[in-house]
Amino acid sequence: MEEMDRDEIITLDYGSGGLKTSRLIQSVLVPALRNPALEELGDGAVLENRGSPLVFSTDSFVVSPWRFPGGDIGKLAVCGTVNDICMAGGEPLYLSLACIIEEGFSMEDFRQVVRSIGETARLAGVQVVTGDTKVVERGKGDGLYINTSGVGFRRKECASPGFSPRAMRPGDDVIVSGTVGCHGAAVMMARGDLPCQGPLRSDCMPLHRLSAAVLQAGAGGVRLMRDPTRGGVATTLNEFVEGTPLSIELEEDIPVEPAVEAACELLGLDPLYCACEGRLLAVCAHESTPAVLEALRSTEGGEKAAVIGRVTEERPGRVVLRTALGGSRILEKLAGAQLPRIC
Amino acid sequence: MEEMDRDEIITLDYGSGGLKTSRLIQSVLVPALRNPALEELGDGAVLENRGSPLVFSTDSFVVSPWRFPGGDIGKLAVCGTVNDICMAGGEPLYLSLACIIEEGFSMEDFRQVVRSIGETARLAGVQVVTGDTKVVERGKGDGLYINTSGVGFRRKECASPGFSPRAMRPGDDVIVSGTVGCHGAAVMMARGDLPCQGPLRSDCMPLHRLSAAVLQAGAGGVRLMRDPTRGGVATTLNEFVEGTPLSIELEEDIPVEPAVEAACELLGLDPLYCACEGRLLAVCAHESTPAVLEALRSTEGGEKAAVIGRVTEERPGRVVLRTALGGSRILEKLAGAQLPRIC
Repeated sequence: MEEMDRDEIITLDYGSGGLKTSRLIQSVLVPALRNPALEELGDGAVLENRGSPLVFSTDSFVVSPWRFPGGDIGKLAVCGTVNDICMAGGEPLYLSLACIIEEGFSMEDFRQVVRSIGETARLAGVQVVTGDTKVVERGKGDGLYINTSGVGFRRKECASPGFSPRAMRPGDDVIVSGTVGCHGAAVMMARGDLPCQGPLRSDCMPLHRLSAAVLQAGAGGVRLMRDPTRGGVATTLNEFVEGTPLSIELEEDIPVEPAVEAACELLGLDPLYCACEGRLLAVCAHESTPAVLEALRSTEGGEKAAVIGRVTEERPGRVVLRTALGGSRILEKLAGAQLPRIC
Repeated sequence: MEEMDRDEIITLDYGSGGLKTSRLIQSVLVPALRNPALEELGDGAVLENRGSPLVFSTDSFVVSPWRFPGGDIGKLAVCGTVNDICMAGGEPLYLSLACIIEEGFSMEDFRQVVRSIGETARLAGVQVVTGDTKVVERGKGDGLYINTSGVGFRRKECASPGFSPRAMRPGDDVIVSGTVGCHGAAVMMARGDLPCQGPLRSDCMPLHRLSAAVLQAGAGGVRLMRDPTRGGVATTLNEFVEGTPLSIELEEDIPVEPAVEAACELLGLDPLYCACEGRLLAVCAHESTPAVLEALRSTEGGEKAAVIGRVTEERPGRVVLRTALGGSRILEKLAGAQLPRIC
């Protein structure tokens, strides 16, 4: 396989489906992502079936800038889809990878993103088994957009019907696996070319271990899980109660890193509306809470897990934040585009 | 659900993950694509598992213009992935749908594309079960890019090992299911604002019936199938023999519509390098050929199926076109971007 120049850029030819497309696949994608299913390079990958119901998810990633403190679009693209499968109760196994590259993107940067995809996939225990590459003209994209879709198998702990907002009951607890808003704040700081405060890094990470820990420890008491990405914790919790007779009442002391608080203050953002890419929200029966918290706190990335609220019947369909002074304020869904292109 | 204006355009808010994203999902996507898995709107869809090996495929579609004679990007996005699953020996069942919309795209056009996705999915017998929507700023996209990924189950006729180029044998026949190059020629004519000759329409169609017919009639003699999209018939056949001790020898009378010939002449293209989006190539044991041809010709869209060549050992790794005068010419893989953004 001929070597590519370090300063080579990606041209329209690489998206032609012909010679240069093969070269990109063989010299950049296959070496970094190597596995038998991918190496067949068929129109589709043929995969072992483990028998339980399938969990299937997709996400396109258009984050700007494509590299940010704590990760890049490649790492994000693996975590985003892996996490969606985990949140739906699945054990993720297989990913697809589809890239839309803007003409002029550097080959070396592309190679780095693919390396980051390979590393994150190994970390998450998934294989990239099938893919697609398109190149669009200059000015018709923004460097690199990535779609990943993922397939997994439903974990046996989620076999009960429910595992959806309909399973929530008054008295259930709302748990978060760590501090909130890091991803959104880190990307916004990177975008503004603002000096990044030391510890402010995206929380981007695969949630396969944390979600498995929650389900195993919860012993049937886990009503649902979701990762609060675009729109943040406030929007995700609104989706939980929307159209139900239930409300969620939040404590004011939701865990937020001081660096995220500072960045949000500077940028005029509310951490509760900032995306997380490595945190999960779980609603649990109150009696399952101690075991779930313990399991999260003893798993890497879950050390700061906390109960942040509970399910009530007081304000049907609403998420209410209790303030320190005994007052309360309704948290709506995110209304505008507070943070465009955060993921 | 509030109604949207007919002249509304899509703004960045629709990609925020908040209120407007929900509105787009609830008022445009769900009504056109309705099915129980999609309506759960979870992070991932939970799906019935039929037990045989999975077939998984992905494609991003960046076709320009997004509407062309015989289809649009929505129809193409369903056919493209459905066909890849069929070609890998799968029966397609589930699709994901991820849209990257450029700010300013018309809501009415988006609605029309989604309608076209719904209609094509019904025709192909697949359900769109999960999705994602992103909006990028003006000048960072080109109207609408769509990714579909698909999951299917391997058909029992493909259970034998092989079903890949490695299964080919000297003496096998190469069959095409219809005339070649219509999709590429139709999109190029549409792009140039050239007067479209009456019958010149994209061949874009789902291949689920034709591929099932081939496999059933072929009774174990079908070595592999592929749809000649980007790079056309010439590039796809090169992929078959690349790195093998075999060659493919093509007849000169490959079926091409007169309107496609005329358009290719005008545009300086070769129909053998023009994408098809509703044709399949199959390599079959010679004794299976009569039954496969008969099955194709009696299935809608396969009326013009023909044997176009055979597998030999004469020029290992090469595709050779026999000319009427008894000469021959090597058909290389597409070099360069003859037709950028054709799919």
